Amino acid sequence: MRQLTLTALEGLPEIELGAPLAPLLVQAVERTGSRLETGDVLVVAQKIVSKAEGRRVALSQVKPGARALELARVVQKDARLVELMLSESREVLRARPGVLILEHRLGFVMANAGLDRSNVGSTGDEACALLLPEDPDASARALRLALRGLSHIEVGVIINDSFGRAWRNGVAGVAIGVSGVPALVDMRGKADRQGRPLEMTQVAAADELAAAASLLMGQADESVPAVLVRGFPYAARESSARELVRPREEDLFR
Amino acid sequence: MRQLTLTALEGLPEIELGAPLAPLLVQAVERTGSRLETGDVLVVAQKIVSKAEGRRVALSQVKPGARALELARVVQKDARLVELMLSESREVLRARPGVLILEHRLGFVMANAGLDRSNVGSTGDEACALLLPEDPDASARALRLALRGLSHIEVGVIINDSFGRAWRNGVAGVAIGVSGVPALVDMRGKADRQGRPLEMTQVAAADELAAAASLLMGQADESVPAVLVRGFPYAARESSARELVRPREEDLFR
Repeated sequence: MRQLTLTALEGLPEIELGAPLAPLLVQAVERTGSRLETGDVLVVAQKIVSKAEGRRVALSQVKPGARALELARVVQKDARLVELMLSESREVLRARPGVLILEHRLGFVMANAGLDRSNVGSTGDEACALLLPEDPDASARALRLALRGLSHIEVGVIINDSFGRAWRNGVAGVAIGVSGVPALVDMRGKADRQGRPLEMTQVAAADELAAAASLLMGQADESVPAVLVRGFPYAARESSARELVRPREEDLFR
Repeated sequence: MRQLTLTALEGLPEIELGAPLAPLLVQAVERTGSRLETGDVLVVAQKIVSKAEGRRVALSQVKPGARALELARVVQKDARLVELMLSESREVLRARPGVLILEHRLGFVMANAGLDRSNVGSTGDEACALLLPEDPDASARALRLALRGLSHIEVGVIINDSFGRAWRNGVAGVAIGVSGVPALVDMRGKADRQGRPLEMTQVAAADELAAAASLLMGQADESVPAVLVRGFPYAARESSARELVRPREEDLFR
């Protein structure tokens, strides 16, 4: 029987700079009455990875430049936030009141360059923003290796975030960092029951799993910052979330 | 322990026009050693719904018009297929060699208007195409009511398909028909741990679940045309996949 089981990992402490995510996740798995098994995938929320890596910025430390001030007027956002968004981005795709769609320096097309003001666990009342990890693939890989060191088990790691989409309402989970799990699964050369070549040749497997895990993480709090996945149906391989980024020259929607 | 479990439903026969999907799915659930429970969601592949509804068209019956002939030259596809795609669509968004992005009459922005040539179970050698169901929300609702009639259990139904996305490589599962499950979950008015209003206010829950189920369905054959989901974390309500379609006037990427 083919089954995919996702289990919410709860009870992690508030994550601060330098927090040891691997042992915290191993303990959270053990609290569910289980242990890591070969082929498991851990999907970890971007927020806790960013916090552990110290990607929190106090807005009082940000001095918006002329471009940020101008753009902030258009999009009606805090100019210091816009300055941070621009510093994390390569290109502004759309700017409207309330909406700022950017190409993040990692290639992701997303709202607000992935900056998050909600629930950044500020010390005192200081207003802060949380940036994406510097290199989420590297973060995923480091976490995978640390989990292997602790448990002697080969698991995959996906760091996920919720993105808005073109044409469709609502946000959905996507993979922004991947290690030990295929980001894309290539179906080229495979045929259907009638022997006809498949038209859909690449499956965004890591995004599909990131979306599945997002369902359990919810959005309203961080009580579920990670999800244990058992039964991921595709073979493990080293990979990168950059596989999921369509090259600019093939992108018809900018 | 919060858990989401997806179970592949296998062993269904080849689906033909008029096939009784509800009893076939109930039997497939029973073959897994389980029974439907209140709150379960069945995710059903578009292909079998379309086949049961007779949405297969023999290409020999299609006479391409002037517009289809012209567009077929641009996109390098069979003009009869392009004629069918146009007949299922409201608008052509992008046309390039090998690529035709349309707004489907149901509002979905998608490649090839959802037409599928692979694995349509043609009688003999006749070339066929499979269209999306006439009204996938109505199909989902009819299936939900039939399942209730058979099992006296309230389940949700999602009809899913795999769509390409702007900006990201690979296809991912999305919901094209929904009944008894929220398509969108509204987080507006909710706050994070610090009491700050959430920035991401709507979650595309049905799309996230459609993506999760796609992982088990694979792409290479139809051996898993449906997935049983237990543990969907949001409250049931009647809904529509049209909630997931961004209104044209709010769409910045056309």
